[in-house]
Amino acid sequence: MVSNTASIIIPDGSVGVVQPEIIAFDEPLHLSSGQVLPQYELAIETYGQLNDDRNNAVLICHALNASHHVAGIDPNDPKNIGWWDNMVGPGKAVDTDRFFVIGVNNIGSCFGSTGPASINPETGKPWGADFPLLTVEDWVHAQARLADYLGIKKFAAVMGGSLGGMQALSWAITCPDRLENCIVIASTPRLTAQNIAFNEVARRAIITDPEFYDGDYYSRNTVPKRGLSVARMVGHITYQSDEVMAEKFGRAQRDPKEDGQYRYDYGVEFEVESYLRYQGEKFSKYFDANTYLLITRALDYFDPARAHNGDLARSLEAVKAKFLLVSFTTDWRFTPERSREIVQALLKNKRTVTYAEIDAPHGHDAFLLDDRRYHGVVQGYYDQIAEQLGLGPRQRTTGVLA
Amino acid sequence: MVSNTASIIIPDGSVGVVQPEIIAFDEPLHLSSGQVLPQYELAIETYGQLNDDRNNAVLICHALNASHHVAGIDPNDPKNIGWWDNMVGPGKAVDTDRFFVIGVNNIGSCFGSTGPASINPETGKPWGADFPLLTVEDWVHAQARLADYLGIKKFAAVMGGSLGGMQALSWAITCPDRLENCIVIASTPRLTAQNIAFNEVARRAIITDPEFYDGDYYSRNTVPKRGLSVARMVGHITYQSDEVMAEKFGRAQRDPKEDGQYRYDYGVEFEVESYLRYQGEKFSKYFDANTYLLITRALDYFDPARAHNGDLARSLEAVKAKFLLVSFTTDWRFTPERSREIVQALLKNKRTVTYAEIDAPHGHDAFLLDDRRYHGVVQGYYDQIAEQLGLGPRQRTTGVLA
Repeated sequence: MVSNTASIIIPDGSVGVVQPEIIAFDEPLHLSSGQVLPQYELAIETYGQLNDDRNNAVLICHALNASHHVAGIDPNDPKNIGWWDNMVGPGKAVDTDRFFVIGVNNIGSCFGSTGPASINPETGKPWGADFPLLTVEDWVHAQARLADYLGIKKFAAVMGGSLGGMQALSWAITCPDRLENCIVIASTPRLTAQNIAFNEVARRAIITDPEFYDGDYYSRNTVPKRGLSVARMVGHITYQSDEVMAEKFGRAQRDPKEDGQYRYDYGVEFEVESYLRYQGEKFSKYFDANTYLLITRALDYFDPARAHNGDLARSLEAVKAKFLLVSFTTDWRFTPERSREIVQALLKNKRTVTYAEIDAPHGHDAFLLDDRRYHGVVQGYYDQIAEQLGLGPRQRTTGVLA
Repeated sequence: MVSNTASIIIPDGSVGVVQPEIIAFDEPLHLSSGQVLPQYELAIETYGQLNDDRNNAVLICHALNASHHVAGIDPNDPKNIGWWDNMVGPGKAVDTDRFFVIGVNNIGSCFGSTGPASINPETGKPWGADFPLLTVEDWVHAQARLADYLGIKKFAAVMGGSLGGMQALSWAITCPDRLENCIVIASTPRLTAQNIAFNEVARRAIITDPEFYDGDYYSRNTVPKRGLSVARMVGHITYQSDEVMAEKFGRAQRDPKEDGQYRYDYGVEFEVESYLRYQGEKFSKYFDANTYLLITRALDYFDPARAHNGDLARSLEAVKAKFLLVSFTTDWRFTPERSREIVQALLKNKRTVTYAEIDAPHGHDAFLLDDRRYHGVVQGYYDQIAEQLGLGPRQRTTGVLA
């Protein structure tokens, strides 16, 4: 699935130009809500080779606005580099010289897998607001079927950051025999009231946008772009630490008057406003509003301890995987305390856990960024997995740690 | 100005039923922006008596959504108790048995003083978007004229929380001879990038609401209520600590299904959503959208150190007042660090400063709430002021500390 295109320069450590695949599933998927999705497609990308023992597969789960395009170069848009390209590639922390890595776009998303903008076979029109709500467990169920399709009985690792980490955790709980390692980065066993509150603000901004039309904006050839933009702006603030925003933007003015004075209007006065507006506008052009609603709701719902009266340790009793957890000191969305809670619950069950709390200034976004200590921990952990599975030594080191 | 109405029960420590006054100023006000407000009215309330020496006056400055109605009972709506009634009254921390307390609604607000919804004398129509932008310094200027009108040369104290604290600080800088004491609670010498970012989200929600009509929604008999509601929801999250939201709401469900299951829709699923929607809706019914924009911009602009290359100590060189500063440990909007910065800058100028950092769970909102240690500090400080000014001993103790 990996091919090179002559005119594109492939940097060292890149998996190269990658073609996505669409895989159709005809068996109905029974969802947590009680609804049934009659059929669906999943968009995936893969990097590296599945070995003969079929024991070197790694599943990467994505967060809110990411996709199956984890690494490498999009042939239709060479500037579109995979969202975790700094982590995944030949010689990188997740070393595709030795591991077969799978990126999958979740159902309900808007990058190729079946979602609200897809055609509902019963009506011949886009699902829109009728698309069923999904949970993290539903995604794991669909991903497990993908593993069946690819002939993978057990993953060397399931890995994700933020909402992706919730999926990895859910894999360990619901399919304990199907993964050797569970890698949960910048995640949480459940949202706090404040987390839900921010999601709700985003949803209200979208739903009350007059161009939302109860989710059926597709048929009106419009998009609730104002609401989506505000939603994204709120999100961006929560992904970054106060410190890093102070450092990046501070109170720097944008195009001040000649004497440095304020403009005294509601246009862009400060750099941080320009940044947020740009991010909001960009997002509203490529992301589907119904998907935003659906994924934030899946975040809200995730709470594996709920079935055990809030006892997280009990919810992890069936877990067999070894764990790596990573958190970041300035992440105020999913604080280190949330990761430590998972660590404690695993230790209570006498499971093998590696935990790294990385002192990084970037807030929640840190899980996507280059950081030597963070990538060093992940690389060391994967080298250990490779050794345990007999995948041979690392051939080269590229990326952040090169 | 304080009168009792027979049918209303006046609780112990209340200033009673209060009639606001409207005071008209015909002299033009020259604003920081270079614009001129030709004339304006201020709505005020007063409690207690101005003494013969005219040295017992206290000015209370309000924050974003408050008003001149600081204490006591609104005769038109007996449930409408002043926003700082737990702080101000006979026998309370700010003791109206000894102090003459003034509450003033700022220009640009929407509770009786001249603002965007007022009639522009030049056009005979509401000012709307043409109402000039204002700064904290402009408000102080207007308040100083009010002091002239009331015959008060020097306040015993100017006091405020949050944006009100910025006004108190600005008084000490711009009118150093007109206040003995400056009381700055849960405030900051300038907004951070994150603070500005949250303000900008709120403004975008309002401005992009199709019912905003570039600020001229008055003539259309409508209100950008969706945008105002989202703005208020964002605000509410930032006023509260993560901890207190966890305690008050946690993940409690609102009207769950009989088996406790989620509803799987975008209606209200969690208590915190219900709370936020209620707060947003309530706010959108009484608060003016143009005022919201104007006041958040005044917050953004405040930065007295700006005229001195960011050197706060230099900007405080002219200050003569003695200071009380109070901050709250869980206030992540204006953290204790911001208050400590003011303390340091004052100490560098060898000014007299009392500083209390209160360990309280309620976040920024703590400055409005009952807290024995917080009110104890303020009460002790006012007793000291009364002693220094020869206002006589406290007659009674009521309120939080009774």
